[in-house]
Amino acid sequence: MDDSASASRVLIRYEDGSIRKVADKLATERPITIVVNGEEFATLVCTPGYVEDMAVGYLASEGVLEDVGNLADIGYDDRTGMVYAEIGSVSAWIKESGSKRYLSSCCGKSRPSFVFYGDARTTRPVDSRDVSLSYDTCIRMMTEMQEQSGLFRQTGGVHNAALFSREGTLLLTRMDIGRHNALDKLYGYSLRNGVKTEETVLAFSGRVSSEVLLKAAKMRCEILLSKSAATDLAIELAEQLGITVVGFIRNRSLNVYSHPERIYEGV
Amino acid sequence: MDDSASASRVLIRYEDGSIRKVADKLATERPITIVVNGEEFATLVCTPGYVEDMAVGYLASEGVLEDVGNLADIGYDDRTGMVYAEIGSVSAWIKESGSKRYLSSCCGKSRPSFVFYGDARTTRPVDSRDVSLSYDTCIRMMTEMQEQSGLFRQTGGVHNAALFSREGTLLLTRMDIGRHNALDKLYGYSLRNGVKTEETVLAFSGRVSSEVLLKAAKMRCEILLSKSAATDLAIELAEQLGITVVGFIRNRSLNVYSHPERIYEGV
Repeated sequence: MDDSASASRVLIRYEDGSIRKVADKLATERPITIVVNGEEFATLVCTPGYVEDMAVGYLASEGVLEDVGNLADIGYDDRTGMVYAEIGSVSAWIKESGSKRYLSSCCGKSRPSFVFYGDARTTRPVDSRDVSLSYDTCIRMMTEMQEQSGLFRQTGGVHNAALFSREGTLLLTRMDIGRHNALDKLYGYSLRNGVKTEETVLAFSGRVSSEVLLKAAKMRCEILLSKSAATDLAIELAEQLGITVVGFIRNRSLNVYSHPERIYEGV
Repeated sequence: MDDSASASRVLIRYEDGSIRKVADKLATERPITIVVNGEEFATLVCTPGYVEDMAVGYLASEGVLEDVGNLADIGYDDRTGMVYAEIGSVSAWIKESGSKRYLSSCCGKSRPSFVFYGDARTTRPVDSRDVSLSYDTCIRMMTEMQEQSGLFRQTGGVHNAALFSREGTLLLTRMDIGRHNALDKLYGYSLRNGVKTEETVLAFSGRVSSEVLLKAAKMRCEILLSKSAATDLAIELAEQLGITVVGFIRNRSLNVYSHPERIYEGV
């Protein structure tokens, strides 16, 4: 674990009527500004460490970086907190409609499935069933991810994310104070190092909101595991996009929210 | 509690080897687009309910609405998820520099205290000491807020926020799947109904990140209570802005992270 991910601090601890000064660890939080071809694109507040990966993952999931081969250069200036990305060709649509609201009419409902034009453009259904897991493996993976996470136990304030191979091997874990950043760090590393995320299982400690589900979809993960609950919109999207969401994985229990055909009994 | 805040869903529950279909409640998540004077300003993904309040709180904390007296009209179209705000005078700076990064040089550190120009413009130190609480009152307030929250127990997936009077009375609770939205709902309600947030204590279930701390500062709350941990940047800002942060309020214990002069022993 990166040492800069937490900072020591003296605070006043009150416990059952007794008051004392103690040294404690706080999660570090740092603003990072991503500059694309010389222009400020976004500022993310995150845990330091794997900052270039995070920027690559973020730009890919936002649709700015459509192919990692277009990434000519990336560099991080630790002093200023700026990440400089040089991208060969940035799609024209991103400047015009990247954050514009997109009203999908595909499913004939009053509520749009995709909120942003960018999401509708960069997300397509995962239709294969190459990956499947037993109930017990889901639980084992969540336990393994949590055990890898030293920072949460120290500071109680970060989200963990991990990629497992479809055979069940832990490939990569990342943590961040920002929900999405932990996922972007996994995605960016994978893009830069040739990890095929479409063949992996994604595990996450936080709630499965629509944004988290869309990140999984962009990474082409068939199965998303979570320690926490899911929202109704996330599950609606998961149904449409063909993603299996398994949530509330705690102790010896879990919920399968969508596409249960990939989860089976046995070992 | 608003019924639309959660939705029923059938899912597969695995528990200690047994598998069954159960009906469960999921937190509702809905995209809301805020339109200011006819122009799309932002889309927030949130729990339905108190949407106009949330929009007002958001626009105020973003600095778009500098005085609630400038709010000529606000209306919510439930069908499309659009909130229409008419604001008498929107500052010119917001369009030019609202989300631009702002490098503060006031404290001579390499890390800027304010990330965004808008935050630096809308946030100033809280210097009074009108509000003070005993350790026991901090714990009692957190318990009271949590007890008010039915939705968390049902869905496990929302953040709670509450305002207490300085005498210790619970004034208002709001919940949302988005951390900041719950705070914006409190702030917006207060602005629209003449609740003086500078005389209140703010309680929050989630982690105290820099963004949460800045919301408290914009509301001019002297004390921020949290069930969760705080980040180093949030505490650095709290020190500078004169805000007392009390975190990790659980069972009979808590941490005072900053400005402990407002927290005392006794009843």
